[in-house]
Amino acid sequence: MQRIRVGLVGTGFMGRTHSNAFRQAPIFFPGDTAVELAAVCARNAESTARFAQIWGYGSYETDWRRLVERDDIDLIDIATPNHLHAEIALAAAANGKMVSCEKPLGVSLAQSRQMADAVAAAGVASMVWYNYRRIPAVSFAKHMIDSGALGRIFHYRSKFLQDWTISADLPQGGAATWRLDAAAAGSGVTGDLLAHCVDTAMWLNGPITEVCGMTETFIKERTHAESGARQAVTIDDASAFLARFANGSLATFEATRYARGHKAQFTFEINGEHGSLAWDLHDLHRLSYFEHSNDGATRGWRSIHVTDGDHPYMDAWWVPGLQIGYEHSFIHQFADFLRGLETGKSLVPDFEAATHTDAVTDAVLASARTGTWQKTMA
Amino acid sequence: MQRIRVGLVGTGFMGRTHSNAFRQAPIFFPGDTAVELAAVCARNAESTARFAQIWGYGSYETDWRRLVERDDIDLIDIATPNHLHAEIALAAAANGKMVSCEKPLGVSLAQSRQMADAVAAAGVASMVWYNYRRIPAVSFAKHMIDSGALGRIFHYRSKFLQDWTISADLPQGGAATWRLDAAAAGSGVTGDLLAHCVDTAMWLNGPITEVCGMTETFIKERTHAESGARQAVTIDDASAFLARFANGSLATFEATRYARGHKAQFTFEINGEHGSLAWDLHDLHRLSYFEHSNDGATRGWRSIHVTDGDHPYMDAWWVPGLQIGYEHSFIHQFADFLRGLETGKSLVPDFEAATHTDAVTDAVLASARTGTWQKTMA
Amino acid sequence: MQRIRVGLVGTGFMGRTHSNAFRQAPIFFPGDTAVELAAVCARNAESTARFAQIWGYGSYETDWRRLVERDDIDLIDIATPNHLHAEIALAAAANGKMVSCEKPLGVSLAQSRQMADAVAAAGVASMVWYNYRRIPAVSFAKHMIDSGALGRIFHYRSKFLQDWTISADLPQGGAATWRLDAAAAGSGVTGDLLAHCVDTAMWLNGPITEVCGMTETFIKERTHAESGARQAVTIDDASAFLARFANGSLATFEATRYARGHKAQFTFEINGEHGSLAWDLHDLHRLSYFEHSNDGATRGWRSIHVTDGDHPYMDAWWVPGLQIGYEHSFIHQFADFLRGLETGKSLVPDFEAATHTDAVTDAVLASARTGTWQKTMA
Amino acid sequence: MQRIRVGLVGTGFMGRTHSNAFRQAPIFFPGDTAVELAAVCARNAESTARFAQIWGYGSYETDWRRLVERDDIDLIDIATPNHLHAEIALAAAANGKMVSCEKPLGVSLAQSRQMADAVAAAGVASMVWYNYRRIPAVSFAKHMIDSGALGRIFHYRSKFLQDWTISADLPQGGAATWRLDAAAAGSGVTGDLLAHCVDTAMWLNGPITEVCGMTETFIKERTHAESGARQAVTIDDASAFLARFANGSLATFEATRYARGHKAQFTFEINGEHGSLAWDLHDLHRLSYFEHSNDGATRGWRSIHVTDGDHPYMDAWWVPGLQIGYEHSFIHQFADFLRGLETGKSLVPDFEAATHTDAVTDAVLASARTGTWQKTMA
Repeated sequence: MQRIRVGLVGTGFMGRTHSNAFRQAPIFFPGDTAVELAAVCARNAESTARFAQIWGYGSYETDWRRLVERDDIDLIDIATPNHLHAEIALAAAANGKMVSCEKPLGVSLAQSRQMADAVAAAGVASMVWYNYRRIPAVSFAKHMIDSGALGRIFHYRSKFLQDWTISADLPQGGAATWRLDAAAAGSGVTGDLLAHCVDTAMWLNGPITEVCGMTETFIKERTHAESGARQAVTIDDASAFLARFANGSLATFEATRYARGHKAQFTFEINGEHGSLAWDLHDLHRLSYFEHSNDGATRGWRSIHVTDGDHPYMDAWWVPGLQIGYEHSFIHQFADFLRGLETGKSLVPDFEAATHTDAVTDAVLASARTGTWQKTMA
Repeated sequence: MQRIRVGLVGTGFMGRTHSNAFRQAPIFFPGDTAVELAAVCARNAESTARFAQIWGYGSYETDWRRLVERDDIDLIDIATPNHLHAEIALAAAANGKMVSCEKPLGVSLAQSRQMADAVAAAGVASMVWYNYRRIPAVSFAKHMIDSGALGRIFHYRSKFLQDWTISADLPQGGAATWRLDAAAAGSGVTGDLLAHCVDTAMWLNGPITEVCGMTETFIKERTHAESGARQAVTIDDASAFLARFANGSLATFEATRYARGHKAQFTFEINGEHGSLAWDLHDLHRLSYFEHSNDGATRGWRSIHVTDGDHPYMDAWWVPGLQIGYEHSFIHQFADFLRGLETGKSLVPDFEAATHTDAVTDAVLASARTGTWQKTMA
Repeated sequence: MQRIRVGLVGTGFMGRTHSNAFRQAPIFFPGDTAVELAAVCARNAESTARFAQIWGYGSYETDWRRLVERDDIDLIDIATPNHLHAEIALAAAANGKMVSCEKPLGVSLAQSRQMADAVAAAGVASMVWYNYRRIPAVSFAKHMIDSGALGRIFHYRSKFLQDWTISADLPQGGAATWRLDAAAAGSGVTGDLLAHCVDTAMWLNGPITEVCGMTETFIKERTHAESGARQAVTIDDASAFLARFANGSLATFEATRYARGHKAQFTFEINGEHGSLAWDLHDLHRLSYFEHSNDGATRGWRSIHVTDGDHPYMDAWWVPGLQIGYEHSFIHQFADFLRGLETGKSLVPDFEAATHTDAVTDAVLASARTGTWQKTMA
Repeated sequence: MQRIRVGLVGTGFMGRTHSNAFRQAPIFFPGDTAVELAAVCARNAESTARFAQIWGYGSYETDWRRLVERDDIDLIDIATPNHLHAEIALAAAANGKMVSCEKPLGVSLAQSRQMADAVAAAGVASMVWYNYRRIPAVSFAKHMIDSGALGRIFHYRSKFLQDWTISADLPQGGAATWRLDAAAAGSGVTGDLLAHCVDTAMWLNGPITEVCGMTETFIKERTHAESGARQAVTIDDASAFLARFANGSLATFEATRYARGHKAQFTFEINGEHGSLAWDLHDLHRLSYFEHSNDGATRGWRSIHVTDGDHPYMDAWWVPGLQIGYEHSFIHQFADFLRGLETGKSLVPDFEAATHTDAVTDAVLASARTGTWQKTMA
């Protein structure tokens, strides 16, 4: 049995989801690789030490530069705000480490390109945490589409709606609200939420070839969480675009943090000649399916409770009818990453794949700026 | 083309649904019978005259005894409070009129028996307005069950939940609240709501052979709407029972007017070896279907939008996707009544059929009184 | 009591919904106006005579030119394929008749403009059957928005999805499939389905100021239903657009006849600072509402069963919990038209209002052709 | 920080859910107690050793009698078939161990009584894994009911529907199908599924005072999984009962393994004067709430997505909108068990509490046998 020693950078929300995946994957998806939580790194020594103790990391660091240089680390996992992704990843690759990184990969397509080139040059495995692909219902949708169940595809529509930034009193910047600060986040909902929509869409339906986008910033000025200064808001609060896929299908995409009543409503629907599929993150264990070949009078949308042993990943969990949750998508992705290492064939979205998503979100932002249709490099 | 001249007794809620059916059936389900709204009867001359004018009745009466004696009436339709059903029906039959009657037929099984015997003796057609059978989704369920789609039946469950009598300030008796007065209504929810549940159940799943019931009166005393006197409440506010069907399946039934949040939630679900069906009056245009023979991994409950031309009654209405409503069940039933007259073979629940339902509700009340299981005469 | 004598042109699907409205409005919404079904007109004498007999029209014509000249007609109602709207409406107005017309008004903005000018010049009342405004749930949404329940609006999204033209074997042209023939229909889904979306959207959320659209024709060639000739398909099978409203909110719109599994899924959702509303024609009696001021831990989307007496139009129908259907929206609109005549103040979308919708759909088609954003004249 | 050393008996489905809880509780709900997975016990040495290795148990045993005698174990956790619960628990208590046990506690009320007495006599903490109380939506329902949000309670209804034993080819007995063998399971669905319904019901709504039940065995004979012998089936395949609560409310309960289309549909609904709540295990992260005090025209059932930081247990997990799953109920219960140990006040259902549930299920079976209403000792 081989062993992989993980060094995590970042102890926020994503640091926790990744850590849980590192711990649970070997139990629920046992393979030939042992996972060792070697070290965790964040700026505050006390809270990082506490994190290490709770999660079982063998050591901790307060400077990621030290972490990436340690000999006893095989994989650097990046769970920091977006603007730090590139520097850490480049340093890790330069030190011959495998690198896994939260999405979006870089804060721009150019940066992502540089990162993908770096891991390629270093010859190390890479992964971007586009975790939603590994929700069993989404993986099963992929299986059904690839098996031809839908036939020729006509339409794709996807949205990711939240409502947590509606208040004008919310600050920007800082630990809790860095996503509202373009300096830390790169962009607003386009890189944060639409990136998920686009990654899933291209995984399921192939390349997007052209887009036409529109963005808006509803609250024009906010106070910075740390400096207290009033600042212009430069992220996109909302973003929507029309798209065409290489397979001839049409799409609409939308993301916003101003859709009152929605916490994390990531949805997609795909319509094909023989059937349609729809999914909603708010009920992530269900997949809606319309099968046109059913008898005409009894046809209808069917809610598949994706909890059976013959659904993707589900034989590792409980019994039919008992749902799993959000965190499991990370466990599944890391299990797939391990299987990929064991077999020498990547089973997860790597840095190269992530640049395709960035090419689309980049084109969306360019389109919104110019008011013109944009080709993507996808 | 023959002609049927209708005389309606009662101008309340049910007088309106029946009148609408008399008018719409010949348009949407044209056959060989013309329908003439000959006369309407209620106690108040002014409001009855107004009702006649609006709905197009040719004349009006204020004494039902005069109505049932008129030569120019073929069908007496009874839409009065329950305690008047029997007397009017017996007089109508004695005068050789066809009789249609709101449910429940009589206020007791004995009274219903007498009514069924009377129309049989008079040789006149009869009908009881168990309208819910003619909701297209319910009719389609009947079709599927009869065609064997569900196989051997294991379970049936049905309920009818309302919440309109929770307030202790609500009076009983009078025009608006006669249903709370045992003198006018016979019983409470058992005759009012459970009767619908039982009629539909036996239509779909065959005879009920034994029952064990429980009733409750939550508010023990109310003011009479007309006299202003405080009175004991003697109706059942809530009623539930266990049952066994002749086909070996088990059932639970429940009705109440104390289920906060439900206006008219009449539901049924039936579980068979090969599939299941479920329906809810609050979304009456949908039928839920689980088809076990679907591929295992894509199986799920399917919501059939019962609005296509190949669904019962629906080719007479609009186009797929456009729903019809509650009132249409009466239109369908009256259209079926006319078709039955034209062909000489009754297509609707007649008085005899209604006694089977009354036998069950009677047994439920007896069981609740005695705390014992009761056989039905079904 | 005054009287309005109706002359209907067209006996298809819309001829039936209008006729039903003419008959039912005076019964369920009695006012000071009697409605007389004076005449119906269609090309085939036999079937038109039959239609007149069933629906109770006093006479029939086979040439609409004769109908519009008759002295005993007050209102010409147009329920023909789209390309005939303008000619009939202009002739009716010229003869001093009131005119009601199916949507879209004309086959182009220019034609609609001409029609609106004609009724204005003639000083006659006009109406366009944008019936969906009169679904009680939609009317109630309008009431809530106007009362400020949602506060500042951020987002609007709407779609109208169907699947009935997916088969390449479907012909175009002729009585059943004229909607696929640009010569008869003007455009495809943009004028047919998006027009409804846009009319409802601007009624609820105010003017649309700019749009960017995309259209597609998936099946490029079909056989003509009557001539049997192979022809290029020139309608838009699918159409989607981004939009900005005058109030600063953003929108996405989409319509298609290639969304497998959807019969008539017309939906809208509107997100405001204080709340959100969503609606779906497939369950037209329900309105989803998120009220942000509810207690934080118990907040959630609420499904309002729009069947109570204090919901728009519903006190005229049955009792709480009992739903009405599609056809009722026409009854409500015609009742409102009558009320408008009685009070001298139009309560319905008239020809002038309809030109605003046409200005948007026209801009969408222009945008799709040119690949550029277009201002609307709204 | 104190330490609790766990010895688990049983490596099946429940052995896994418990093990996961032992591992995750200290991470997501860190307190003053460290949890050590000391030993696991099952009959097959090889598979037990493998289980120990994967899950991180320090050792393993193949005879539970040895396990309960070990000095280095503080808590014996029982995850075996039902008929072994009592013997192991009694031995553990006799050895001064804390005991946690899968439900139902014993295979009869008498046995459960003996177990409760044993832990009481030994003065050791006990727990029964009625895990569903710790689904956040269910815990939140408890909170709402206790805070008076529903007012006087009128109705409770609950069911647990499955369909996995419909096939007559399914064997009984053995490792996978011991639940069909009365010798191993005690009873059928009454002890397996109704026990959950009853435990949750009495937790939320107080004691049940009387019941009237009905059971059925649909498949009368099966082959034993190990012996291959044809045997009579002596478990109840289906069980339903009427009940009255001490607070005056009425209830219906039902459980079956013959409800085609349902995997694990555990539901409850409770109706009170001021509001109602409903929940379904198939969407365990949602709680339906009807709040009567909402404005009349906008009232409706509200779907609360129980994933916010102010919902029970949820601040320990992710961010709003991201659901957790089934296994988390065990984690929460074990965290509560630890908090109870730390504070000296039990926060979980203990053996004594479980006897109340057994008193009800025992009365249901007695009622079904005798056809009479039965008082419970609750």
